[in-house]
Amino acid sequence: MASLSGVAVDLGGTKLAAARFINDTLVERLQVPTPRDGGLEAKLECLTELVTALKLTAVDAFGVAVAGRVDGQGNWHSVNHKTLTGVTSVPLKDMLLDRVGCPAVIMNDAQAAALGEARFGAGKGADPCGFITVSTGVGGGFVFGGNMLEAPSGLPGHIGFTRNSYASRLCGSGRFGTLESVASGTAIARIAKDLGRDIDSAVDVFRAWNAGEGWAKTIVETSACAVAEACCDLRALLGLERIVIGGSVGLASGYLDQVATAIAGEPELFQVEVSHAILGHDAGLYGALSHAKRES
Amino acid sequence: MASLSGVAVDLGGTKLAAARFINDTLVERLQVPTPRDGGLEAKLECLTELVTALKLTAVDAFGVAVAGRVDGQGNWHSVNHKTLTGVTSVPLKDMLLDRVGCPAVIMNDAQAAALGEARFGAGKGADPCGFITVSTGVGGGFVFGGNMLEAPSGLPGHIGFTRNSYASRLCGSGRFGTLESVASGTAIARIAKDLGRDIDSAVDVFRAWNAGEGWAKTIVETSACAVAEACCDLRALLGLERIVIGGSVGLASGYLDQVATAIAGEPELFQVEVSHAILGHDAGLYGALSHAKRES
Repeated sequence: MASLSGVAVDLGGTKLAAARFINDTLVERLQVPTPRDGGLEAKLECLTELVTALKLTAVDAFGVAVAGRVDGQGNWHSVNHKTLTGVTSVPLKDMLLDRVGCPAVIMNDAQAAALGEARFGAGKGADPCGFITVSTGVGGGFVFGGNMLEAPSGLPGHIGFTRNSYASRLCGSGRFGTLESVASGTAIARIAKDLGRDIDSAVDVFRAWNAGEGWAKTIVETSACAVAEACCDLRALLGLERIVIGGSVGLASGYLDQVATAIAGEPELFQVEVSHAILGHDAGLYGALSHAKRES
Repeated sequence: MASLSGVAVDLGGTKLAAARFINDTLVERLQVPTPRDGGLEAKLECLTELVTALKLTAVDAFGVAVAGRVDGQGNWHSVNHKTLTGVTSVPLKDMLLDRVGCPAVIMNDAQAAALGEARFGAGKGADPCGFITVSTGVGGGFVFGGNMLEAPSGLPGHIGFTRNSYASRLCGSGRFGTLESVASGTAIARIAKDLGRDIDSAVDVFRAWNAGEGWAKTIVETSACAVAEACCDLRALLGLERIVIGGSVGLASGYLDQVATAIAGEPELFQVEVSHAILGHDAGLYGALSHAKRES
């Protein structure tokens, strides 16, 4: 595989990161909070500023990862309208070309992180390799033979929207009882609030869990069991050799152990190795640029 | 793709079929009941007789489909020990080479049917394409860009062993609450018997369903809803453009309509087109030989 050189962007719900890579090394990285106001226009403006500062030119490989679904034409769609608002069939590829003058290869951010971890991170040596991010939402991606599993719809990897036996609520995607609706950080916070707990976010629930509080134990361990069930389903469906777990919930201290414990209770054939993501907030940048290189 | 010529075998739990293809045409087909007694030895003896009658030679492409899991080394394993007994790490590839003198490419029968339908049957024109067989057990396969989705474990496609929200029993695979444990013909018959119904097999349940009996309606429609849930999960996970439904239950009159109705109740993004398998009992033969051709 050609070495990684060019510019990558990761546009998430809370932060917007951009980086320049030279020969597989991240040499410069810029990050700002994602603009909350001003809609798409403000986000693109901000993105343009970052890549201009990184001296993006038309000959650079240019990979962009975004939350939400990206179809084969480079159009951007939200799936869970509660976590990603105001994105309906946005022609992102064309809009970026107009603004920055360099053709972008655009993909879902969890798929990008999956590819980054599989090629450069915790998935190295495992084929096929999966990735699940448990964060504000739940997403993922699958890498077979070093390549992203892709489809024209851009859906592959949207594991947050599969049914899960631990879930019993309506999801922002419109599906009932999804993995995301029970396992995500958003779900963890909402369930705690529904129990009358005075918390601000999932961070407070994890703090209570670490302090040994029973109510928090139930919520966090249910999330981990739901993720474990999804891991074993993926083992049966795709024969994954390893699943890398990332995201703020997935990387919370003690969480992966809970997932692994639940997996160990399943029949051996459906057990799958799980490990922590190691590229942290850079996984999506590595993956997006790696994907762009392949297509350029 | 090179045209299909050579010999294919489909070794199922009830019948053993073999066929010779010349230039994409099935020119001769032999079928016998799978020997119930005599274990593996009797099955191989019978298989050898059929391919000898078809004049298999060492230069033929030779594809073999079998119920159960086939790993990357050509070893054969049962997954649901209730539906496939006595198969534990059988070195089938080596045993067949010893007996028939021609190297076989061996694969799971549902994966073979998936490939056959995708390349030559109801899946043509849909990419990626999935296949689910609902029969004695529940199996399947996924075809991306015309190629089988594969992994060293041989697991990809084992959708019968994923969790399903309609299921509440232990499966022969050792997993609890699987799709197979609620949707298969075996499950349909067992659930009816547990309700005290005097039936011999799923065929009697379908007869009662067609006659409008309420108890049978519940059982059959629960099976169909479980399959529909799995189809929408696959749409989210893999972005399948079409799912071909086969097997004796899947092809039973009225069943596919029930699956399609349940899918239509899900959010649009997760809906997926479903259609009947059209190659019938030959799908596995087409797929197995097609797979062997690719590797030869």
